[in-house]
Amino acid sequence: MSTKHFLPDPTHLVHTSLAALPLLNPSLALDSSNKIIYLRPNTLPATQKVSLISGGGSGHEPSFSGMVGRGLLSAAVAGTIFASPSAEQVRTAIMSRVDQFADKEDGGVLVTVMNYTGDVLNFGMAVEKARAAGVRVEMVVVGDDVGVGRKKGGKVGRRGIAGTVLVHKISGALAAKGAGLSEVARVAKLTAENLVSVGASLEHVHVPGRKGMDESERLKDGEVEIGMGIHNEQGSSREVVTLPELVGKMLRQMLDQTDEDRAFLKIDSSDEVVLMVNNLGGVSVLEMGGIVTEVVGQLEKSYGIRPVRILNGTYMTSLNGLGFSITLLKVVDTGIEGSSILELLDAPCEATGWSAPVLAQTWAEQNTATREGDESASKVLTSSGLKTVPALMQQMLTRALESVIAIEPEVTKFDTVVGDGDCGIGLKRGAEGMFIPYTSRY
Amino acid sequence: MSTKHFLPDPTHLVHTSLAALPLLNPSLALDSSNKIIYLRPNTLPATQKVSLISGGGSGHEPSFSGMVGRGLLSAAVAGTIFASPSAEQVRTAIMSRVDQFADKEDGGVLVTVMNYTGDVLNFGMAVEKARAAGVRVEMVVVGDDVGVGRKKGGKVGRRGIAGTVLVHKISGALAAKGAGLSEVARVAKLTAENLVSVGASLEHVHVPGRKGMDESERLKDGEVEIGMGIHNEQGSSREVVTLPELVGKMLRQMLDQTDEDRAFLKIDSSDEVVLMVNNLGGVSVLEMGGIVTEVVGQLEKSYGIRPVRILNGTYMTSLNGLGFSITLLKVVDTGIEGSSILELLDAPCEATGWSAPVLAQTWAEQNTATREGDESASKVLTSSGLKTVPALMQQMLTRALESVIAIEPEVTKFDTVVGDGDCGIGLKRGAEGMFIPYTSRY
Repeated sequence: MSTKHFLPDPTHLVHTSLAALPLLNPSLALDSSNKIIYLRPNTLPATQKVSLISGGGSGHEPSFSGMVGRGLLSAAVAGTIFASPSAEQVRTAIMSRVDQFADKEDGGVLVTVMNYTGDVLNFGMAVEKARAAGVRVEMVVVGDDVGVGRKKGGKVGRRGIAGTVLVHKISGALAAKGAGLSEVARVAKLTAENLVSVGASLEHVHVPGRKGMDESERLKDGEVEIGMGIHNEQGSSREVVTLPELVGKMLRQMLDQTDEDRAFLKIDSSDEVVLMVNNLGGVSVLEMGGIVTEVVGQLEKSYGIRPVRILNGTYMTSLNGLGFSITLLKVVDTGIEGSSILELLDAPCEATGWSAPVLAQTWAEQNTATREGDESASKVLTSSGLKTVPALMQQMLTRALESVIAIEPEVTKFDTVVGDGDCGIGLKRGAEGMFIPYTSRY
Repeated sequence: MSTKHFLPDPTHLVHTSLAALPLLNPSLALDSSNKIIYLRPNTLPATQKVSLISGGGSGHEPSFSGMVGRGLLSAAVAGTIFASPSAEQVRTAIMSRVDQFADKEDGGVLVTVMNYTGDVLNFGMAVEKARAAGVRVEMVVVGDDVGVGRKKGGKVGRRGIAGTVLVHKISGALAAKGAGLSEVARVAKLTAENLVSVGASLEHVHVPGRKGMDESERLKDGEVEIGMGIHNEQGSSREVVTLPELVGKMLRQMLDQTDEDRAFLKIDSSDEVVLMVNNLGGVSVLEMGGIVTEVVGQLEKSYGIRPVRILNGTYMTSLNGLGFSITLLKVVDTGIEGSSILELLDAPCEATGWSAPVLAQTWAEQNTATREGDESASKVLTSSGLKTVPALMQQMLTRALESVIAIEPEVTKFDTVVGDGDCGIGLKRGAEGMFIPYTSRY
């Protein structure tokens, strides 16, 4: 858990970070005193009649401020780091930072939040006040996290995590197509009901302005906490596991129908499924790729599930958390012609935090052609005719290669000073490559 | 510098991470033994006659494998972490993993790499071999980093860092429009010549499979290394600075025309400029927003530069490095009607690593309308008529508020166990908010 920050003051950090949104997306404006990012007036298509509002504590960027944009959210309300915004901030957003569409049939405002006490309380109070003032508002609460089972969750239910973004995207796209509030709210709920997610982290995250966690509470080297929340909340267990074991456990928590504590959603191999693998903020993109490969492999091998869409990126963070979450969305029928779950997911939008660059037609093409087997690049090798004593040669070569491998840290160290640090590892990999016939280490 | 990893074996990590690309973008295929990600056959538009190849050491994802896709690269060749691929891997990519377009007028292959000895050597050798085999190949080397000045850089020149991605995007878009090799190579060079970048990091990054850096070499708390390379290479200085001071120094290294060691590019306030603020992998999205605001603010205030495009994201990493880089691209005339630098930058593409969700028309709209000043949400406050002794009230209130602020760590600790950890900070922020009239701490 690094406690180093470029912007250590949490109050300044949240304000200045929100100020970046209108710079990165000129269709957005910031109400700085209420920490509301909203679409500028006259930005929506003329047919749209539903505004979408979300928000919550800061520290989960790009959720939710980065999800504001044409085709997604209309406004996001931010609290301080990991703390809900106030009801008054949310009320201001509903009443005066979005269109209420009172003049349009079935027009109104959809408020979608994650299932945390503060958010449900504050957004809920604001919704009641707005309704009292005559605005048509619907509210959807998302709890996709299976990290906490039924017994422990009790009446509170499941927390909301990264799957929430899919609810925003799908309801946002439906609103952009001109659907009314009752339809948009129904599809948002339907999406939320067909979501399961779970996270895992190697470390707690440090919150700027707070003291670091005590050594005794931290995860040990090699330990991973399954089900850790996006505010450092305790998960279901701490374990020393390999990635395949970890992913296996996470998928079972999401999919095992025999687990009475956690069987929240039934997914069959015949169902269409959307997979999202979300970076909690501090995992390298290189490692995220390896995690995606593992998740996709096990989904197919253990469950016969081949996702129809695979999304990988940074959608909802726990600051720069060294963890990831897996989300599965079961593609169910919306009952609306031309607005299936996939069509809404694939629809274009203009939010800096949403990333799904691959087009629907590319997913549909099922192109599996390769260029392997093309031998135009291969060369013919001919013998040099040299005679040697094989055993002696092997002994000499082995000793030389071992020396090259052993000296890697020192070569790397000096090449980091005078070059780009790849010389040692290049020599080591070369030496190891020559070992392959003799050893089984790779 | 966290040494924790979900995938600790560097060899397995690179292979399994590459395997994710075809899962995330079905138009791609992986040549696993040569670590080449390439566009499947028959994926390019019929008019395209230039293939684009790049690559380098792994650990910089989404560069370069994530930049392969329609409208961007045709193939990327990966080495091990922070080490160049071999000339043979690159030769295989040129000869048999992309179209060589020998039958089209001015058709061919453009190879673009960053200026590191290993890459220039290995890609260069492969280009020579491909030319000897009759393929038309041009090679462009990008060195945008001003972190190392002329004196220290000597004949080696500048390193390549995140600005390289802009060269790929712009040349990729031009190729997708059907331009020939000579035009595509010329515009790639032109783009590279009009780029300056510099990075800064709070920590070195840990490379899986290598031992961590000695304590004595690490950055101290509060220190930042300006100009640190994307392979942990030494920068120009280590300093204890605030973010505004840090950004000021970085911008001077890029823009100060009186610095003989570093004035690589002249940018006037009348020039159009593209700004890219790149996450080296481990900075929270929240902090990245604050960094963007600071950079944009200083560019305007100190240099009169208002970028015409602002990109912020994770384009080229140093694994999960706790740092960022700033890139400025001067928008110069390509001399090609309909293919200006901005038109090529804005052109659609389908690479999972490229992110520029805001449309050209949104940048052009210059919509500055807000919903501020809308008072429909405000409430009229009326006096309750209560009489008090102000000094006593203030004393009591101050003491109470101080107690609330002091107990925050303990409340946070317990709320992290039973809730989402926001209770303490919520109380503290409320108490601090009531202090504002009396103190100037914010």
